[in-house]
Order: sequence, then C-alpha cells, then structure tokens
Amino acid sequence: MSRKVGVWIVGACGSVATCAVTGAEALKAGVIPTSGLVTELSDFKDLDLLRFDEMIFGGHEIRKVDWVAAAEEFARDNGVISPQILEAVRPALQRHSKNLRPGVTLNSGKGVASIAPDAAERALTLRGMVDQIKKDLAEFKANHSLDQLIVVHLTSAEPHFVPPREFHYVESFLALLEADRRDLFPASVLYALAAVESGAPYVNFTTCIGSSFPAMDELARRHGVPHVGRDGKTGETLMKTTLAPMFVARNLKVMSWEGYNMLGNRDGKVLDAPDANQAKCKDKDNCLRDILGDDETHSRVRIDYVPSLGDWKTAWDFIHFTGFLGTKMILQFIWQGCDSALASPLVLDLIRMADFAHRSNESGNLRHLACFFKAPYEAEEHGFFRQNEALLEYVAAHRKARVGARV
Amino acid sequence: MSRKVGVWIVGACGSVATCAVTGAEALKAGVIPTSGLVTELSDFKDLDLLRFDEMIFGGHEIRKVDWVAAAEEFARDNGVISPQILEAVRPALQRHSKNLRPGVTLNSGKGVASIAPDAAERALTLRGMVDQIKKDLAEFKANHSLDQLIVVHLTSAEPHFVPPREFHYVESFLALLEADRRDLFPASVLYALAAVESGAPYVNFTTCIGSSFPAMDELARRHGVPHVGRDGKTGETLMKTTLAPMFVARNLKVMSWEGYNMLGNRDGKVLDAPDANQAKCKDKDNCLRDILGDDETHSRVRIDYVPSLGDWKTAWDFIHFTGFLGTKMILQFIWQGCDSALASPLVLDLIRMADFAHRSNESGNLRHLACFFKAPYEAEEHGFFRQNEALLEYVAAHRKARVGARV
Amino acid sequence: MSRKVGVWIVGACGSVATCAVTGAEALKAGVIPTSGLVTELSDFKDLDLLRFDEMIFGGHEIRKVDWVAAAEEFARDNGVISPQILEAVRPALQRHSKNLRPGVTLNSGKGVASIAPDAAERALTLRGMVDQIKKDLAEFKANHSLDQLIVVHLTSAEPHFVPPREFHYVESFLALLEADRRDLFPASVLYALAAVESGAPYVNFTTCIGSSFPAMDELARRHGVPHVGRDGKTGETLMKTTLAPMFVARNLKVMSWEGYNMLGNRDGKVLDAPDANQAKCKDKDNCLRDILGDDETHSRVRIDYVPSLGDWKTAWDFIHFTGFLGTKMILQFIWQGCDSALASPLVLDLIRMADFAHRSNESGNLRHLACFFKAPYEAEEHGFFRQNEALLEYVAAHRKARVGARV
Amino acid sequence: MSRKVGVWIVGACGSVATCAVTGAEALKAGVIPTSGLVTELSDFKDLDLLRFDEMIFGGHEIRKVDWVAAAEEFARDNGVISPQILEAVRPALQRHSKNLRPGVTLNSGKGVASIAPDAAERALTLRGMVDQIKKDLAEFKANHSLDQLIVVHLTSAEPHFVPPREFHYVESFLALLEADRRDLFPASVLYALAAVESGAPYVNFTTCIGSSFPAMDELARRHGVPHVGRDGKTGETLMKTTLAPMFVARNLKVMSWEGYNMLGNRDGKVLDAPDANQAKCKDKDNCLRDILGDDETHSRVRIDYVPSLGDWKTAWDFIHFTGFLGTKMILQFIWQGCDSALASPLVLDLIRMADFAHRSNESGNLRHLACFFKAPYEAEEHGFFRQNEALLEYVAAHRKARVGARV
Repeated sequence: MSRKVGVWIVGACGSVATCAVTGAEALKAGVIPTSGLVTELSDFKDLDLLRFDEMIFGGHEIRKVDWVAAAEEFARDNGVISPQILEAVRPALQRHSKNLRPGVTLNSGKGVASIAPDAAERALTLRGMVDQIKKDLAEFKANHSLDQLIVVHLTSAEPHFVPPREFHYVESFLALLEADRRDLFPASVLYALAAVESGAPYVNFTTCIGSSFPAMDELARRHGVPHVGRDGKTGETLMKTTLAPMFVARNLKVMSWEGYNMLGNRDGKVLDAPDANQAKCKDKDNCLRDILGDDETHSRVRIDYVPSLGDWKTAWDFIHFTGFLGTKMILQFIWQGCDSALASPLVLDLIRMADFAHRSNESGNLRHLACFFKAPYEAEEHGFFRQNEALLEYVAAHRKARVGARV
Repeated sequence: MSRKVGVWIVGACGSVATCAVTGAEALKAGVIPTSGLVTELSDFKDLDLLRFDEMIFGGHEIRKVDWVAAAEEFARDNGVISPQILEAVRPALQRHSKNLRPGVTLNSGKGVASIAPDAAERALTLRGMVDQIKKDLAEFKANHSLDQLIVVHLTSAEPHFVPPREFHYVESFLALLEADRRDLFPASVLYALAAVESGAPYVNFTTCIGSSFPAMDELARRHGVPHVGRDGKTGETLMKTTLAPMFVARNLKVMSWEGYNMLGNRDGKVLDAPDANQAKCKDKDNCLRDILGDDETHSRVRIDYVPSLGDWKTAWDFIHFTGFLGTKMILQFIWQGCDSALASPLVLDLIRMADFAHRSNESGNLRHLACFFKAPYEAEEHGFFRQNEALLEYVAAHRKARVGARV
Repeated sequence: MSRKVGVWIVGACGSVATCAVTGAEALKAGVIPTSGLVTELSDFKDLDLLRFDEMIFGGHEIRKVDWVAAAEEFARDNGVISPQILEAVRPALQRHSKNLRPGVTLNSGKGVASIAPDAAERALTLRGMVDQIKKDLAEFKANHSLDQLIVVHLTSAEPHFVPPREFHYVESFLALLEADRRDLFPASVLYALAAVESGAPYVNFTTCIGSSFPAMDELARRHGVPHVGRDGKTGETLMKTTLAPMFVARNLKVMSWEGYNMLGNRDGKVLDAPDANQAKCKDKDNCLRDILGDDETHSRVRIDYVPSLGDWKTAWDFIHFTGFLGTKMILQFIWQGCDSALASPLVLDLIRMADFAHRSNESGNLRHLACFFKAPYEAEEHGFFRQNEALLEYVAAHRKARVGARV
Repeated sequence: MSRKVGVWIVGACGSVATCAVTGAEALKAGVIPTSGLVTELSDFKDLDLLRFDEMIFGGHEIRKVDWVAAAEEFARDNGVISPQILEAVRPALQRHSKNLRPGVTLNSGKGVASIAPDAAERALTLRGMVDQIKKDLAEFKANHSLDQLIVVHLTSAEPHFVPPREFHYVESFLALLEADRRDLFPASVLYALAAVESGAPYVNFTTCIGSSFPAMDELARRHGVPHVGRDGKTGETLMKTTLAPMFVARNLKVMSWEGYNMLGNRDGKVLDAPDANQAKCKDKDNCLRDILGDDETHSRVRIDYVPSLGDWKTAWDFIHFTGFLGTKMILQFIWQGCDSALASPLVLDLIRMADFAHRSNESGNLRHLACFFKAPYEAEEHGFFRQNEALLEYVAAHRKARVGARV
C-alpha cells in the first residue's frame, strides 16, 4: 500500500537539498546506483522504509531560483549530476518547484543577509512567523493530500548561538516567544517549532540550533513528534571521529590535530563570515576533543573559502602523535569529496528514519541516529563506530520485533 | 607477590625485539611514558597483568650482535631511543644479552639466508631442531629459576607458505615431522612446537605461519598452552581496517584502494626478496578485501625497500570511491611511523595478555586478541573496532569475575 | 594569406590525439580558453605560427572507432570535454574522421597486440609497409589540396628498444630495411621514415624510438625535414625536472626519490605489460638521475594501472633529502592531472613549432624543443628551466630577425 | 694567508643563529658534510671565499642564554645536531658565548616584548641606541684584533612596517633619527645603521625592514659597505618560486594557491601575534603573485603555531589550475623541513658572499643574491631559477676575472 509523504525542505534550493531531491528522483528513475545511502544497506532491508516514489518535495527558499536551475548550476560548476541524470529528473524537478515558498531568515547572520537583504518578515512578530510557516506547511499538505509531512532544515550556518536559560523549560521558552524577544530566536528555532506544532517529524542537518535544546525536545514529546539534529557528519569530521578512537584504542597520545578545510560553494561563502565560521569549527573540534579526552592536545580547525573548488571540499588533516619510547609520528590525510553528494543521501536516510520512528510511535530526540551528526543532541558518544553500532542495534531490534509480529 | 617470567624472543636482536626489551627496561626505569601500550589503558587496570620488572629476556638470534649494539645502531639510524633512554637501560641490556643463543633458520627464505648463510642446523633432523630449541628454553628457565616462560616470534618474514593437508590433524602433522620432511617445515613451526611442548605460551607477531594451523592449535590445547598470531597490525593495515568499515557503514563503494609502503630497515631488506614480499602483501590485502566484501574493488599493496628511511615506514594509500549520484571521490592518507616503535609495545601487550590467559587456565587460540594482528588465526572479523570491542568485552568480563571473586 | 596544412596522426583516436583534435576545433569555435598552450604565450605572438583554422586532421588508427565516438567516450569516462564543447566540435570531428585509415603495428608489444591482434600488415615487407604509409599520406594531401603535411606519432608505448649499431649510419640502416629484418624495426621507425621520405616534418610525442637515432636524423637533413622527439613531458616528469635542479642549486643531497604513478586509460592498460612499462619508467628515471648527477641517489619509478582513474593520472613523489648538519628532510607531492588534457596542447604546440621550423628552412633534430620531452634526442640538459630558456631564446632570435626583415 | 673576521649576529641565540654557529664549527671539526651550503658547490670553488676557520662569532641576544644551552635545547627538541656534533663543537660554542651582549628591541612587536618585557633601552635616544650597538661592535673587533666585521640580522619578525616617505632620502631619514621619532624606527633599522656606520657589511635574513629602503642603501654606498636582505627563502617559498614559473611556462592558469604553514619554534610563537604574522605572510604571498602576474588568482598564506612541531616546519600547498579544454587539475605538496637547518647554511653563504663583495669593492645592495630572499630589495625577478642563474653569472664573471688577473 502506497503512502504520500511530503518532504518540506528549509533552504530548499541549496546544494545539499538540490542533490537530495535530484537523487531521490534519479533513484526512482533508476539512473543512479544506491551508493551513499545508508538505508539501502542490507541491514535495513525489512523495515519497510519510506520509498522514494512516495516522497513529494516542497520547501522554503529565500533566493529566486527553482530546482531545475539549481541542479543545472550545480552540474555545471561541479561536474556532478551528469547530463543523463539531469534529463531523467527534469520534469519531476519542475513539478516539485511549484511547491517552493519564500522563507524567514531572522538572525541568520551577515552571510545570509547578503543573499537576502530585504526579507518581508520584518513586519511580523515571532509568533506571526511561526504561524506563517505552519500555514505554508498546511497548504502543502492539503494541496497534495499528503498522509504525512516531514520538515528538513538545510539552510546555511547561523552564527554561533548559545540558548539562554529560558530555553530549558517549555513555559519560559514560550514566554520569550510570546514576548517577541527577536534577539533570542534564530530562524531555525521558529522552523523547528512550526514543525513540532504541525505534528511533522523534524530533521536538522545544519549547524543551526534548530530543535537541540530541552524545551523543544519536551514540546516534541508532548506533540508525539520525533526530532533529530544537528550538523551532518559527512566528510572531514566523519574521518576524525573514525580515526580518533583508533589512537585512543592504541594509547597513541595525540599532541596536535590540525584540520584545514577549503571549499567554494555558497556554504563556503557564508562561512567566510567569522560568526558562522566559528559555529561550524566549534562543532568539528568538539567531536575530536571529546573522543581524545586529553586537555593537552593542540587542535585547530580552519574552514577557508576557495571559490575555484565549488562544492569540492578539500581537507588536509595533520595528526602528530607520540608512540612508544616517546617517538613522535605523523598521520596526514587529504579528503577530496563533493560535499553535497556526501550530505544529500544522509538527508534522505534521515527522512526515512524519522518517518519510521514516527510510524513506530517514537517521539522526542532520536538518539540512535547520532552517527549522522557532528553535534548530536544529548550525545554521550562521538566515536563513529560506537554510534554506528547503536544504529545497527536499533535496526536489529526493530527487525526482530517485526519478524515476531508476523509470526 | 612477585613472579619471575622469562620472555624468550626468536629473532631477539631485530628492531622490534630490541625496542621491546629497551622499552620494558625504560618503563622500569621510569624514563619513558606508557604511550603506545594498550595494556596500560585504564580498562586493563585491575587485571594484575605481568609487570615489566617481573620480565627477564633471552632469545635466539642468528646474527653476531647483542642488545646493546642493536639498541645503539637503532638509535643512530632512526633518531629513536634517546641518549637518556640508552644510558638508563644499558646495564640491563648487557645482562639480558647473556641469554642470547643462535637459532635455526630452516626455509626462512633467501633474505634471511643472505644474513645467515651457514647455519649449523643442517646436520640436525627436524625433531633434533625442536629438541635443541627446547633445550635452550629449559636452560634459560633453570638458570634464572623462572616461574614461567613465554615464547615470542619476531623474525623476518618467511616466504609465503600454505600448510599442507597433513597440518590439519595432530597425528598426520607429527608423522611428517618424524619423517623429517624438511621441505614442509619453516623454522617458525618448529619454534611454535617447541614452545607448546615446553608448556610456554606462544605469541607470533610475524607473517610466518608459526602456530596458525589446526594441528598446532589442537596440540596447544592438549598441553594447556595458549597461543596467538599472526602478523602484527601496527601501521598501514591498522589504518586500513579502521577506515574500510567506515566506507562500508556509509555505503560508499570503494573502486580502488592502492597502498604503497616504503621502508628501509632489515625487515625491508628481507622483503626485497619477492617470496617474502608476497606473503606480507597478501596479509595486508586480505584484511581489506574481507571487510569491503566487494569483488569489484581494485586493490594493490606494494612494499618497497628505500634504505634512507631506515625504520621509518612511510605509506601512501589512495582510496577512490563512489558516493551518491555516482560521484567519484578520493581519500588519501600518508602514514609516517617508526615501525618498531609501533610494534614493540604491542609485543609487550601480547606477552602480558598471553601470560594472563595462561594464568586464567585458557588454552588454544586467543581469539580476543585478534585486534593485534593482520591475519588473526580463525578470524571472523577484520574491522579494527569490532575486534577492539571484543578485547574490551573480554577484559570487562574478567574484571567483573575478579571483583566477584573478591566479594 | 591562409594555408592548408594536413596533420596526420599515428594513433589517431587515442586520448591525446582526440583531445588535440577536439581542442583545435574548440579553439576555432571559441568555446575554450587558450590555457595549456605554450605557443599562445605572448612571447610567441609575432611568429605567425600555423593557425588552428589552417589545420586539417587525418591519421592511422588500428581500432574501429572515429573521433566523434572517441571524444564522447573520453567525455563520459573523465568528465573532461564538456557537453558544450562536444556539440561545438561534433561536425568537424565527423568531417575529419573520413581521413582515418588502418595503420601498421609491427613490434608494438603485447599490449597493442591485444587490441589489434590481426593486422593485415603481415603480408607486407618492411619497405612495403613504408610505401603503404606514404601512399596514405599522399592521398590525404591530394584529396584536400594541402600545402603541407606534418606527421605526429601518438601511439601507445612500444617495448623498450635499443637501436642496433646499424642504425648509426644511413647506409647500414637502409640495408637492414631492404633485407627485411622485421625483428629490428618497430612500427614507429617505419612511420618516421615514411614522413621523412614524404617531406613531412615528424613529431614523436611517445616513448617509441621513432626518429631518435643518427641515421634517421641524417636522412631528415638530407630531405630538408625537421623532426623532434621523444616522450612528452607532461606531468610527473615535468615536476621532477623542475624540482630536481632546485635541490642541486641549494646543495641539498637527494637520498631517495620514489615516484608512484597510477592511471587507468588505454595507455595505462598497455603499460600493464612489463615490456612497455619498462621503457616508460626508464625515460622518467633517466631525466632525474641526469640532473641530480649523484650515483648514490636511490630512485624508483612505478606506473600502475588503476582502472577507476581513467585518464586522471595521479602521482605521488616522495623525496628524501639531506640538508645542513646532516638533517634528513622530506618533500612529497601529489599530482592529479588529466593526462590527455596535459599532453594534447603540447602536441598542438609541437605541430606549430615543427611547421615553423620547416618554413624557416631548418631541418634535422629541433633541439630548442627539448623542454617538451622526457627523452629529447641528443639532449644535453634535462632541467626544465634551462630547456625552457633555450626555447625562449630561439623564439626571441626569430622575432628579432623578423622585425629586422620588416625594417 | 689567514684572516680574522668577526661575525656579529643580532638575535644570536635563536635557532637559525645557533645552527649557523654550530654548523660552522662542525664544518671546521669535519664532523658534518657540506650539504645545504650553496657556496660549497663547485661553481664557487675558485673564489677564495671566507673560510669557516676564519670566523669568530659574537652577537646581541635579549634572552639569558648562551650558545651551548641553545644548541642543547635545539638538539633535544628537534632531534637535529647529533650528540657527536654537540661534543665536537662544545668548547668553541663556550668560547664564542663570551662575545654575547644584550640588544635593543624597539618596536619589535608584542611577540618579542613577551620574551623581553623590560629592556634597558628605554632610557636611551635613538642615536644613543645606535651608538651603543656601535660600541659593542667596536669592542668585539678590538678584543679579537679582527680584520673585518660582518653584521647579520637574525631576530624574530617585527610587525609589518611601511617606511615613511622620509626614509627615501638620507637627509630626511637622519633628521627623523635625530628628532628621536621612536615611533618610526624598528630595532632592525638601528642595527643596519650601526653596521653601515661601522663599515661592516650587513646581511638581513629576517622579514624585518633592516636596510631595505633607499636612504640606507645610499648611506651604505657612501660608506663603501655592501648590504643585502630581506627574509630568507628557505622552504615553502623556495618551492613556490620554483614551481610558479613552471605553471607560467606551460600556460597553466593558476586559479587558487593556498599555502598552510605550521611550525612550533620560538619564531612560530612570535608569529602567533597577528602583526608579525601579517608581515611574514605578505612576503610569502607577494613572491607568488609577482610571478603569476594574474589578478584573478586566489591565493592565501597561513602560518599557524603548532608547538609539538618545534622547528620542523610543515607546509601544505594546494594549487588548483586550469589546463587545456578548461580542465581543472590539482597539485599538492607537503614540505617537512627543519627550518633552522634550512636557513642556517644560507646565512653562512651570505656571510661569505657579503665578505667577498666587500673585498671586491662592491657596495650598496647586492642584487645578485636575490635568490636567497623572499623579498629581495629592489627585486625585478622572483622566480628562483632566473635568480639563481644571475648568481651563477656573477660567480662566473668573478672567476673569469680572477683567472685573467693571474695570467
């Protein structure tokens, strides 16, 4: 029996979102392999996950662009999304593009402000913005007779934001909202609230705060909505959280871990603004420091904007460590990956897993999905393998339950 | 209560062995930190493992050299083992050097033959060689009133050797030995047999066959002796078996994994002989192929002798993989590690863990130590983290039992 | 005043040749910049070099393929030659493809033999093969009313070939040919002879012997024909011959220079055959050893076939050197270049410069073009910058002469 | 006939200076090879350059340290200067250390200020500081009956300094000095002036301004004193100025050149202060931009302090360039060099060449030594090979003159 599930993307025509939508359609059309999709591994086979032909896409986008134009631009700049793929998905991208609406950008930083300097939102209160988002979601659902909605946050990085004390409790949080304390609400929080209040599972793949604070988690539980975030773990940090536990396991003391990242896409341009850059670097560095657990380790993360690279993130990590007899040794790695081609399948994985959790009557933070994130909410473990084993255990438990249910 | 445990090293003055003995003494003297030693991690704290001041070293060495000369040569060539360390351990190295004896080198390949062209063993039968080894062990034990003996295999790589059918069963194996079928017995098998028959736990850190076949495993069980091997996982292969599961977990299809290794130590010189080189490359490559489980992956391992590098193994791995939308991406890593400084603490770890197993009345193959090896005997898992988790579970179980016992 | 010059390519539909023809047409069409073309630098401006719209292409190709199919395959496999370029040049490629003829492959090695196992040439004598090539050239010239012909050798590598003593003198060389000593004549020599006897300047960009021996040089002078070769210097060797003189100038002693090359194109497949591989490695290594002039340097070149890379040659060079106070230091470089996109503009440069030399009444070996080659015939200097300065001096002298002539 | 030449080093016990003095003595003692010294190449053989046994060392040093302690610290931290070398040179280092005096640090930046927070110089006028330096020089000369003095500037980087208009002419420059405009005089200018007024050739190997402005050049000519600077070209910039001309020669358009440098020595600590860092980065970047001559190139230089590296500068350069058919390609290099072991022999070379120029009655800026510097004063060429050819031409001309003179 087929379902109709709406996937509403905030930051809809960014590179990651465009690759996700393009990829979902290309999978439907059978013109690409399933590589890069975790949920296509054999472990996930019996879960009856949401199918790609059950997804309908829409979203908020502040720039004047649609998915066809975004996909063509991405293909031209990065050599990814071949002419064959583009032809196969063009009609679907045109169709989904009708579901695009302008969004809100409150406190999204100078980088975003330079792209969308004059958002109409200025006349609205915080509650007014939330209501407008909910209205867009409701119309999308009604127009397409959707069985379910899922909201995915894929905007550029907001400036580093530390939630105030009041974000700890539902009541004090809502009080700030009603008091229209605009200085304390980045757009991502408004989106998360709109999703939760609309009963839509919420996935935050960005470094923005989104739903990652106690009041929102509690609200999600009250509304029976699962949520998960934040900051997708796609490339250099995936490598870091895979390798750092190896050094720990072998008692090799890491003296220095210096990570230099270069990229040239719109995300990189936004990160050229120091405030957004700081938020991103912090997430990347925290993972590492948490695993190594050594206050003497010198670590540094830099993210530099290099226009010619486009979406091709290139990272050099230099790891200086001490082994037996006090011997200083070196590991270096160079990662050359297309950021959006790495991120977008994980976005599809998270959509499927959030939907699955919702159907399984799970709500609140989805801890078993920590392996997908640089800064998973309430994380106790940053090492990639332990995180991944937790995911596989979750999947195995559900498979077993399902087999049991059938018998 | 203190014990006296003899550690008998085959290939006693090679670089790994020299660093192990030097390191154990430097730890006693308190002049180096414990970095590089797995068994010094907090997880292992309550196991009452063999202490470094309980170890007495001896061994077989075919070259005319002792541990002082070997340590000095190593320090000069590689900048590892500082003048301070050297001074602190010199008297102990002189003392242990009195326990060195010439060894046997049957079928150890042209590389070894070029170092020890005229071994006295030629006059002996296979059984005669085993008995001679056992006599050396017994004398060592008697001379020092040792409570226990442990045998560690640390020679250079023997040529690639596929055990004949008869090595499956104790009876057929022993029959070949008694028939003096010299063409079928590399020296490492004779050493393993001598250890087992002497009741000494046997650790094989080399690519040699040693005890890694069913008949020897069965013999070890009959004699109540634990054994473990083979081919220490120290550098590039540690990296490979850490990273390959990451690609699998993320469904990133590895098209090519090309590993180039360069080194300039005696081991490297022996590996310049094609037969030994092949054995080593096979172990390195099998790990990878087993984890990736993809017949279409193109993989290659090269090990080249570059004299100026000395013990500083330098490896470049190039990994070409396909992600979402069929996008080809690249990971490269460069590993610059001092091979013997990486291997030697693991040798000390294995001595301690083999001794611990023996005291815990465990015998036969020590599967929980698979994380230390490139080709662990009877391995079902090559991924480093799953192997390491198995070790930690073993340790946790024993800790729990001990705590229980105390109560 | 416009000329019509025929460019006859041996190995016409290989990757380098295909990119050269495609590029020449794309330049005519104005859809690509001039980057990569040395002769488009300002120094060359006043020489009235052959224009791209004056070139007509034809050639010998042993496979059943034309330039349209070759360009499409190359674009699909390597992401180079964009859809826009392809559309712009398609009609011209179709037109030139009518000038393709089957060629001869005598003694071209097992690699080539596996592609063209059953060449018709077997029935012909050596002289008969030369005559057949000359007939193809003459027909091409006649069909298009060409003012001039230029022959360019772009086949895969032939096995390493040391010219016999008789190749020193014209008479003994021709005697061997007439005696039909097929064992002593690789195809490239027959092509060079056909070009020279046809009065066509001859450019050999491959590792094949071609015209690089005294008898052919003398024949070329007798026929008033310029020739040049061999083995284009495009990537890793360009780097080597740029960097090695730096180490010499700074008296930094190179202990080891290890170069690992990987590629996955047809050239790489042919190089998988040990005989062709050896020829190529020898050229790469000789350059280096000649510049360093140090018998103690350990150097190695490996070229490995890695199918997933296609035309994207990836090279890792590891350079271990000694500085002041005997300090060992390291330089590593990683080169990721599209081999054919590097080679093909140089082929166009050489066509122009060979044509220019011919019009300037120069004949025999063109020594000033040594900077384009790994193994320039009669080279006294392998350092790239000194070679390049010699080219610039040649150009400056001709510019001066031209300016003088005008006055 | 032997001479006695005093080498006065400003920043005497820094790493570069310590390695220079240690190296000169080690060469006298015959315990190191001549590698790293340009002036030991055969081209320089007949110039009768200053011999190492003719040099006597002294200098200004703001820290409480001598050459023995500095050499021991350097050896321990960096594994360079072996125990054998240390023993061989210890007595000489002790002897030279008697010639150490405290120096001035006016406007040397916060980095230096943190090392020497309370210099006695505050009570002096600018002229008073110059006179004090001259007095130290005169005493050194008198104490050792020296034939000649040479002053070498080897302090840490001063903050980026743009000479004011008045530094163009001798008169206005001296007027500022007499007016005691302390805000406009970094210490390096005072040292240069003291050297010039003392008749001592002046070599500035640092990024400090030193003698690199017209008024000082004119003063040097008036005093018959040669001078040269600034900012030694030792590692990453040597690589840049060797490679960039290759890209130009091949018309390969460099889109991006990103250089990341890490080091952990005292120099690195000073460079952690943004003002000094900026000066250094500017010199490194200017070289590149000058050679490429392309305003569209995106280039960046970062220098980061990584304590564990000590003197082992590690640089990663990422070069993204466009070749034929608009193809984007990549070159990366990784440089791992001991900064002081690279710089110190060049300092000895410059001492010899400055002395040679002085004896040859040359004064003012020594343009032929541009190849030794990142920011050679009045440079017209930054490409390393053209600079080096100019040096070799100078040497050849002098050799020829000498041979002529003998006849």
